[in-house]
Amino acid sequence: MARTKADPRGYDIPQADWPPIGEHLLNRLATAGVGHVFGVPGDYILRFYDMLSHSGIRHVGTTREDTAAFAADAYARCNGLGVVAVTYGVGALNTVNALAGANAEQSPVVIISGAPGVEEQRNDPLLHHRFGPFSFQREIFERITCDSAVLDDPYTAIRQIDRVLASAHRHSRPVYIEIPRDRVDTPAFPLPAQPKAMPISDPASLADAVAEAAERLNHAEAPAVLAGLEIHRRRLQGHLARFLLGARLPVAATLTGKSVVGERHPAYLGIYEGAMGGEIARKVIEQADVLLLLGVTLNDVDMGIYTARLDPMHMIRASQHEIWVHHHRYTHVELGDFIRNLASKARPSTRHLPEATVETPTPSFPQPKRAMSIDRLIARLNEALTPDMQVIADTGDCLFAAIDLRVHERSEFLASAFYTSMGFAVPAALGAQTARPELRPLILVGDGAFQMTGTELATAARLGLDPLVIVFNNGGYTTERFILEGPFNDISEWRFHKLGELFGPVRGFDAPDEVAFEQALQSALAYRSGPSVINVRLSPDDTSIALRRLSERLKAKVSG
Amino acid sequence: MARTKADPRGYDIPQADWPPIGEHLLNRLATAGVGHVFGVPGDYILRFYDMLSHSGIRHVGTTREDTAAFAADAYARCNGLGVVAVTYGVGALNTVNALAGANAEQSPVVIISGAPGVEEQRNDPLLHHRFGPFSFQREIFERITCDSAVLDDPYTAIRQIDRVLASAHRHSRPVYIEIPRDRVDTPAFPLPAQPKAMPISDPASLADAVAEAAERLNHAEAPAVLAGLEIHRRRLQGHLARFLLGARLPVAATLTGKSVVGERHPAYLGIYEGAMGGEIARKVIEQADVLLLLGVTLNDVDMGIYTARLDPMHMIRASQHEIWVHHHRYTHVELGDFIRNLASKARPSTRHLPEATVETPTPSFPQPKRAMSIDRLIARLNEALTPDMQVIADTGDCLFAAIDLRVHERSEFLASAFYTSMGFAVPAALGAQTARPELRPLILVGDGAFQMTGTELATAARLGLDPLVIVFNNGGYTTERFILEGPFNDISEWRFHKLGELFGPVRGFDAPDEVAFEQALQSALAYRSGPSVINVRLSPDDTSIALRRLSERLKAKVSG
Repeated sequence: MARTKADPRGYDIPQADWPPIGEHLLNRLATAGVGHVFGVPGDYILRFYDMLSHSGIRHVGTTREDTAAFAADAYARCNGLGVVAVTYGVGALNTVNALAGANAEQSPVVIISGAPGVEEQRNDPLLHHRFGPFSFQREIFERITCDSAVLDDPYTAIRQIDRVLASAHRHSRPVYIEIPRDRVDTPAFPLPAQPKAMPISDPASLADAVAEAAERLNHAEAPAVLAGLEIHRRRLQGHLARFLLGARLPVAATLTGKSVVGERHPAYLGIYEGAMGGEIARKVIEQADVLLLLGVTLNDVDMGIYTARLDPMHMIRASQHEIWVHHHRYTHVELGDFIRNLASKARPSTRHLPEATVETPTPSFPQPKRAMSIDRLIARLNEALTPDMQVIADTGDCLFAAIDLRVHERSEFLASAFYTSMGFAVPAALGAQTARPELRPLILVGDGAFQMTGTELATAARLGLDPLVIVFNNGGYTTERFILEGPFNDISEWRFHKLGELFGPVRGFDAPDEVAFEQALQSALAYRSGPSVINVRLSPDDTSIALRRLSERLKAKVSG
Repeated sequence: MARTKADPRGYDIPQADWPPIGEHLLNRLATAGVGHVFGVPGDYILRFYDMLSHSGIRHVGTTREDTAAFAADAYARCNGLGVVAVTYGVGALNTVNALAGANAEQSPVVIISGAPGVEEQRNDPLLHHRFGPFSFQREIFERITCDSAVLDDPYTAIRQIDRVLASAHRHSRPVYIEIPRDRVDTPAFPLPAQPKAMPISDPASLADAVAEAAERLNHAEAPAVLAGLEIHRRRLQGHLARFLLGARLPVAATLTGKSVVGERHPAYLGIYEGAMGGEIARKVIEQADVLLLLGVTLNDVDMGIYTARLDPMHMIRASQHEIWVHHHRYTHVELGDFIRNLASKARPSTRHLPEATVETPTPSFPQPKRAMSIDRLIARLNEALTPDMQVIADTGDCLFAAIDLRVHERSEFLASAFYTSMGFAVPAALGAQTARPELRPLILVGDGAFQMTGTELATAARLGLDPLVIVFNNGGYTTERFILEGPFNDISEWRFHKLGELFGPVRGFDAPDEVAFEQALQSALAYRSGPSVINVRLSPDDTSIALRRLSERLKAKVSG
């Protein structure tokens, strides 16, 4: 409708064919493969929602904005780009934590925030949802995104949109787009498309890095590979698999990189996480004479809260844009190029692969009158996992317990494993299943985290999705109990299995013991018309092995 | 315990008697009248929580951090200062929206965020909950608070704490305090207390402002008063009441200032909100030849989305630090001093006070088989309101409907009436009833807003509080439907009256018609052992008069 509007600057340029700014944005998102936008409407974004509802992209309405952002984060991880659209102030600021998490976890989420119109803002009035100067919202988001734009100028809007979307792709991090509501329909000056300047490897630097790395690998006696989060975010799982096939090296993954290697792969050692991970992985990784780190971020969680014992002199470390061999640093080398080229230079290792961790058969589950325990719960879930399921873990002991879950080749593991924001899993499952309807989410979530965002299952129920939720109900913040106990770690008691009374269709099951759990699991696996919730009653003292090791480390740090 | 620790800088100064930084902070909060701290624990704030649990201040654990911040906001409005304590990143960033709201609504909330220890931060490691440079969190909060401090230096910590608490008091806005976890126990260098530099009125400026204002008031033929939000935040209700008693002027309140005048006061006209408010208030305020604005903020909500017709040439406008008489501006005049002095100079008006709005008796409620409607719901609630109740309205049509509720002298009305953040009311009621246990909250909340934060009733239930929740259930975002309709305004259907199945003790009532509502209301009024929820089924077309007027105005603005 606004195509015929007068140019706001009064330039006399024909504009009948110019696309409205909002339309250009939607077109670019569609081209990038975005099929869904998550969010809650509000008056400053309503006009964009209206345009969205007439586009080929579908809106998925959530109960809150932070859950929309978590869903967009998971969607981005599954699909390459995720989008959340919200109103100014009250909407956008509710996403700050989730967006900061996407930034920390390298997930390319686009947040589109409505705003008061350019004309409305002119005299700096006190408009509702305002909390300070109008520029403050962008300034806040500049600290949790890798690029941002305010689409107030129709002459630059196209360039700005194209630039921030390229940034999201290039850096695999969130970007911020603010669109004043009187600019949604404003014709955008059709500046010619700018070629995307995606980083490419410098051939000489790449060749040298590969040569030095191959030389060391080929002469190593006990080489090993540790694969991390960047393999997932840069979609290099295929490169990695081909490299491993040729080089015949044992491989472990970090927790944030869990599932970048198919976890039933014969050379897979499990999760390496210093003292927190399994013994086989720890031994092979820490004793390697050449350790190849592929896309690993050296954060405290992946390093087992610094219980990792890795010798830099034994390391070859390849990250997104650079390679370190000992203290040699090769810049302008892309991770994908490095892996692909190394695959052709690395000779198959003659190293005897360590005995593949034999899958321990579930020890006669269920046993009558036996209370539920984390170890046996995980063992049972390991057996129940099928290739059409996707494991999504929340923060807390369920995350650490998930270290021992072996997910299948085709599926994936999603978590806020480094940023460790509670409340991630249920909304993330909404985003994941929207992106990949063929994978059923298996959600592991603690009682505290479920109280934060669990009611977002209402949206999954409304959309006919069927996530299966395992609530690790141990009556409070168990991770913290083991650091420092106090009454502040207690929380309200919820009858999680009654959630379906509040909205539906949701099936709920109470699982105080193994027999009840087994029945619940069978019923939930068979129920495909909506979400299922199994309320697993655990003792507050029962924890995963990893947590016991971690909490001892953290305990020492609480007061410095 | 750390009193005997070596001074981190190695200065050789005796420190046995120095209070730990955390203890000084808790002492200052207690002195300021803080009896409760809201929040969710996490490892970077655990040591402070431990210290808190051994202090005289009580911790109120919530399910999420944003609800803790809303509770602290309401607590601050009732008590003079509210506190929310959270962990770094995932905790603090979840409060950004609620804190921005407190900033917009002039509510003095202290946010205390834990942080990695100073020693832990030294080599800039990738610690969990980190989302960027460690300084970014403070930089985000600088944009939604009036002052901030990072307590990393024991030599300045006391001054910093004292300064930011003074700022919260002075500006009646939120402040940010970050405490690295290895500084909670660090002895604080006992710098001598600094005298608080609270602003005081310049006597000459005050005298001139009062003289000119009195002169105009005393010669006015149809003077009137409009009272606003600052009267509440600066606790000047007593000043205002005494002034009105002497000056005998008709008075209206803005929506954000609702209840600063006892709403059963004979000279009270109701809410003035341009075209949105009642007719009597509109007429008297807009036709006044001298209109005295006391503590009014000229925001779009209070001005009825700019449908207000106020002539600056008829105005005397007194705000917190300055007075405008027409275009004369008097600076360095405090609002309280101005009102007190004006009271002694203003002669009793001989103006015939307009007929006090007669309370319309509830028209034979309930009528059999009559569906619920907003107008009759509000009329019935008006009758049910007693002086021991406090009305707390969420954002949406329930807020506009509340314009017509007449709250009692002793009680108060709380809302996010300018910032208009959905999800405010239920957590705010938790904060309000914690601060004032003698007042029972009556919560008005829409279905969309209740889905955002309604499960925070679990905390009220755990603490034995008894808020009475009226859910305006009209199947979606009605306020937005009237601006721009689309499928994005639909939401999931919840059986709100079944909430007690999920946690308890909560009584729930379904109220599809007037008879059912009446029974529910009677039962809920009698039930004092926990929260009550009445699910009032309203037609999606049924709205308050104010909303109908507002949405027509907004509709014109959506696309500029």
